Amino acid sequence: MPLDVATFNIIANAFSFAIAAFAASTIFFFFMRQHVAPAYRMALLLSGLVTFIALYHYVRIHESWHDAYAITEAGLQATAIPFNDAYRYVDWLLTVPLLLIELILVMRLPQGEGRSLMIKLGVAAAVMIILGYPGEVATDDATRWTFWVLSMIPFLYIVYTLVIGLTKAIGRQPESARGLVSAARWLTVVVWLFYPIVFLFPMLGLTGAGAELATQIGYSAADLLAKAVFGLLIAAVAYAKSRDEAGFTMGDSEQTWARREAAQ
Amino acid sequence: MPLDVATFNIIANAFSFAIAAFAASTIFFFFMRQHVAPAYRMALLLSGLVTFIALYHYVRIHESWHDAYAITEAGLQATAIPFNDAYRYVDWLLTVPLLLIELILVMRLPQGEGRSLMIKLGVAAAVMIILGYPGEVATDDATRWTFWVLSMIPFLYIVYTLVIGLTKAIGRQPESARGLVSAARWLTVVVWLFYPIVFLFPMLGLTGAGAELATQIGYSAADLLAKAVFGLLIAAVAYAKSRDEAGFTMGDSEQTWARREAAQ
Repeated sequence: MPLDVATFNIIANAFSFAIAAFAASTIFFFFMRQHVAPAYRMALLLSGLVTFIALYHYVRIHESWHDAYAITEAGLQATAIPFNDAYRYVDWLLTVPLLLIELILVMRLPQGEGRSLMIKLGVAAAVMIILGYPGEVATDDATRWTFWVLSMIPFLYIVYTLVIGLTKAIGRQPESARGLVSAARWLTVVVWLFYPIVFLFPMLGLTGAGAELATQIGYSAADLLAKAVFGLLIAAVAYAKSRDEAGFTMGDSEQTWARREAAQ
Repeated sequence: MPLDVATFNIIANAFSFAIAAFAASTIFFFFMRQHVAPAYRMALLLSGLVTFIALYHYVRIHESWHDAYAITEAGLQATAIPFNDAYRYVDWLLTVPLLLIELILVMRLPQGEGRSLMIKLGVAAAVMIILGYPGEVATDDATRWTFWVLSMIPFLYIVYTLVIGLTKAIGRQPESARGLVSAARWLTVVVWLFYPIVFLFPMLGLTGAGAELATQIGYSAADLLAKAVFGLLIAAVAYAKSRDEAGFTMGDSEQTWARREAAQ
């Protein structure tokens, strides 16, 4: 089934939805920094950078989608310009390591432990994305499978670290934040599973307009969950811990915080 | 080998990657100012200005690249509009002196020593870029060689100053920052070597799509390393020294800092 005007528009609207949501999330995370204790502001800064980078790439993806097709009297026609899927990989290369670093930062682990986890997870994430790309641009199934398998190795290492490796550290989080940190961890594991599955679509014979619709809507939904909703969980953790630690309440100004800290 | 659609797109994606990375870096450096002691904020301001100027020029370069070629049913066609490489020189003229000043600022040398180094290195950097440009736009190899040799003089002076001249001052840096300052210095020396080498490509007969790919990907990677990654090292130096000097910790507010300084 070739792509028709209606399906083209549904996909374009999903991209536009992502642009609006990422733009609003970015502004929210940057302002939200003032509402949490200083120790958690770096995590919120990274949340905002992640959604900002995603915003940029969804603007480019939306533009590329419109360049790749023309709506004519005869219906939808592909132009000579191919739809540029590489924007997704460039986005992930920058944002996926940052997302993992966000999670570790908001947990506020003892310095050595935190730094070591950030480096291991950040490098594994970058390697995973870099290994996925040659498979994505390959035209034969053998190359696609090879790079799928290769990039699953760092992926499984990340899942293992999140599910098993972090359990003890999550147990040490204050009670008010423990459930939220664990939710952020499980959101990541479950949503990230979507990406290697979509990668398999062409190898499983899923092509045409239906597969394109599932892929593009799926990627947009997964990106929103993994970045914007994940960022909201990180913000909730930061807020709960700030309130716990020094009676810091929503809207406290930097001055109030400094005064309270001085009084301790 | 003429440029094809795939190679055109790889280069366009490299430019887009640079845009996203420079935009995110700029936001990061400006926010990061709040997380370091006041003495190091000017260095972070300059880091952010450098990546902001690079962001602007990569938007222009991306645009010029798309104006220079058209994707048609018959493949990639050069248009009448030449790709504008001069954007790079304008960028370097502004950013290269700032990068060297950043490094000297974050070292916080005794006032006279720091100022004198900033002037010498800043002027040498500007002269180096100005001398490179007439060679870049020249059509004959003799002129290219002449200006290559001329601009190597300030280049070698800068390398000498970084490698030999700064060694004693780096030795006086606090232990927590010494390795990072030295890494920033070596990153600059190694990455900057890329530029005079690429300048030689046309004189060595390296032309066509392969050389264009190597040049543009190489320039983008070198710019990202020399500006964004270099800026991250400067931020790490500023953070380590802030923490060392007065128990300044990640996320301390400006008020906290002022109070601590007043109490000393």
